[in-house]
Amino acid sequence: MKESKDKIVKLGIIGLGWRTEVLLVSLFAIDAVEISAICDLSDKAVAKIKSIFLKSGRPIPAAFNNYNDLLQKNDIDAVLIPTSWNSHLPIAAAAMKAGKYTAIEVGGASSTEELWQLVHASEGTGAHCMMLENCCYARNELMILNMARQGLFGELIHCCGGYEHDLRDELIPRMKEGFERTFHNKYRNCDLYPTHQLGPIAKILNINRGNRFLSLVSMASKSRGLGLYVKDHSGRESQESEIAFNKGDVVTTIIKCAGGETITLTHSVSLPRPYSRNGRVQGTRGIWLEDVDGIHIEGISSSTKEFDVSGNPYTVHHWDTVQSFYDKYDHPIWRDYKDNIVGGHGGMDCLALMAFIDAVRHKIAPPIDVYDCAAWMSVTCLSEQSIALGSMPVAVPDFTNGKWIKRESVPINKWSLTNVYKD
Amino acid sequence: MKESKDKIVKLGIIGLGWRTEVLLVSLFAIDAVEISAICDLSDKAVAKIKSIFLKSGRPIPAAFNNYNDLLQKNDIDAVLIPTSWNSHLPIAAAAMKAGKYTAIEVGGASSTEELWQLVHASEGTGAHCMMLENCCYARNELMILNMARQGLFGELIHCCGGYEHDLRDELIPRMKEGFERTFHNKYRNCDLYPTHQLGPIAKILNINRGNRFLSLVSMASKSRGLGLYVKDHSGRESQESEIAFNKGDVVTTIIKCAGGETITLTHSVSLPRPYSRNGRVQGTRGIWLEDVDGIHIEGISSSTKEFDVSGNPYTVHHWDTVQSFYDKYDHPIWRDYKDNIVGGHGGMDCLALMAFIDAVRHKIAPPIDVYDCAAWMSVTCLSEQSIALGSMPVAVPDFTNGKWIKRESVPINKWSLTNVYKD
Repeated sequence: MKESKDKIVKLGIIGLGWRTEVLLVSLFAIDAVEISAICDLSDKAVAKIKSIFLKSGRPIPAAFNNYNDLLQKNDIDAVLIPTSWNSHLPIAAAAMKAGKYTAIEVGGASSTEELWQLVHASEGTGAHCMMLENCCYARNELMILNMARQGLFGELIHCCGGYEHDLRDELIPRMKEGFERTFHNKYRNCDLYPTHQLGPIAKILNINRGNRFLSLVSMASKSRGLGLYVKDHSGRESQESEIAFNKGDVVTTIIKCAGGETITLTHSVSLPRPYSRNGRVQGTRGIWLEDVDGIHIEGISSSTKEFDVSGNPYTVHHWDTVQSFYDKYDHPIWRDYKDNIVGGHGGMDCLALMAFIDAVRHKIAPPIDVYDCAAWMSVTCLSEQSIALGSMPVAVPDFTNGKWIKRESVPINKWSLTNVYKD
Repeated sequence: MKESKDKIVKLGIIGLGWRTEVLLVSLFAIDAVEISAICDLSDKAVAKIKSIFLKSGRPIPAAFNNYNDLLQKNDIDAVLIPTSWNSHLPIAAAAMKAGKYTAIEVGGASSTEELWQLVHASEGTGAHCMMLENCCYARNELMILNMARQGLFGELIHCCGGYEHDLRDELIPRMKEGFERTFHNKYRNCDLYPTHQLGPIAKILNINRGNRFLSLVSMASKSRGLGLYVKDHSGRESQESEIAFNKGDVVTTIIKCAGGETITLTHSVSLPRPYSRNGRVQGTRGIWLEDVDGIHIEGISSSTKEFDVSGNPYTVHHWDTVQSFYDKYDHPIWRDYKDNIVGGHGGMDCLALMAFIDAVRHKIAPPIDVYDCAAWMSVTCLSEQSIALGSMPVAVPDFTNGKWIKRESVPINKWSLTNVYKD
């Protein structure tokens, strides 16, 4: 990944929390990027990141407390915004207005209005905004995209995704320090974090490129997990045990697409269970199911004829392992880059960052664009509306204002790191 | 299972199709039952069942074409009604009005009105109606019920179930003979067959006994699977390939319960995939997930502390196999009867029939009663309404008219074959 100096991207990072520490592990491995400015409201956070640069023997970037000061620097090509859920959208809009290539971390929106602002900032300036949705770069999700584009699943019919991740150990202990996500769980009731599996599904279903989310319904279970955790860990008599959390432990959302496909999403962060993104892609010829770790493709996977107790025949389909498809169907990105990826979440972080940096270097649209950001993040505030209205269906805005009809999806012979999702 | 003659149940069977052939394998193994009458509109079907009796060396039952004639026989204690989806409810109501213990096979309802008729027939005569929901007697579902009653999952929060079964090989070839289910798939768009996993879940959530289904929303994907199968197998030019099917390939329904729990149901019979009932029971202390074939219980299953690339700790929960819980938590029914069960679906058919016969012999309410039948089967017509209304939420009637509030659930020390679900 050695690059000539003139192609090195000068990057600013706004928001210097835990997520930035993890991203730095990957960024330090990408030679095409130089981190020339950092910014956080907290001097302590700035100092911590500076110390990481110092330890690694790298030059210390210019440091700012006000992101507008960082955005005014003309020598910065692009900014990374791993700030909190409530702040990254307005900062991203400001960054695009300052003419920067912009990358935001994942999360959900508070309103469709802030998403329209993001879209207008991009359309008004021509600047690009990419969401660093690392799960779009997971090996299995990339392979399923590759297989879907080659038609192995037939016509796509139904997908599932979820963020099922027990975060009680993080949400409750960090509540005292004002951890924003805990307060989202306290005050809101919706799918707070839809993009980890909705992103890959949206790419597979060509959302905003010949397809779009039309409407959704959402339903929340009662809320018990976080309150119980507080009681378990602080005693029933303490003041903390009185905290009520609005967010249902399991929020289920069903999305209808213009192409007739349905998507079921699950959000659950407050119950004990092994992690799952609950992935499923199903078509007229086959299915991938993450929890089974299996794929069944008609004509490839085995099906046997069996007989019931009174002798009538019936067909039984069998699973193949996901791993058995790697040799033949691993996505080109994974094949090309798997030996070079460094950092968090099994390399997904690194691939997402590389795709962004590469878009900046080649002055092209990033593989996840502002319309993707808006559509994916809208599920948070729209599921909130549906739940508040007793699971009424809610329409998803067309953030492309009709452009989705003629925007084309990826020809499979044109995939590379930069154009995995576009032509 | 040898029984004294005076306790032998005299049984009539109305509807002599393929399902009856399978049930006979189990019924012939239960000494407490004598099949003394059979009935079908078709003489051919009657003749086929007679030949099975002949081959087995058993006395040939009295045969009828009109079920009212069978119901008038005073020496019949109970009737089994494995007829088609459209006919078993009115016949069951007639059977109760004739004073018979009544058992229907699984299926969904066309309207809530026919379910009210069923409830009124039972309440007006004191006769009982049981649904032979064999999946309530599956080993894993019984064990999960046992574990849930013992509190291992904590407070229950969310359940999933489904009927995901590729029936294309059955639905399309049998269309020419007028197979009713194919026509349901042609004309209706809803969860046609909800009870296989909703039954066990409803028992686990104490539906109609301190809990009830409040409302539901349903969404259907586009319909492609059956039409494509017709084209694949009869050529695109044939007349058959013009048949349009209304039922979406995947129908997803979310049910809200009075206790605050949510249930997600999936119906899919027209796409190639391995069979699954998509089972999930999740509470504040643990989860069962059928597709993983796993259980995780806080304090029993292992959880480890791991570290991300920048050194921050996080908790990882691990699955135990379902099988590892059999020794300690197999349901008493399974322990007591597993060596005696004979017949279809791994013995589930036999256990359901034994439960019904046992209720008749002891003149007690069956473990699945008329309110269960009505609530479970209502999901079919209510999901149809929700889909027709663009996924609007639809209220589920309280078929108990308030009795659910004081009806008690099962004390775990009182379980036996007859009272698995009641006290």
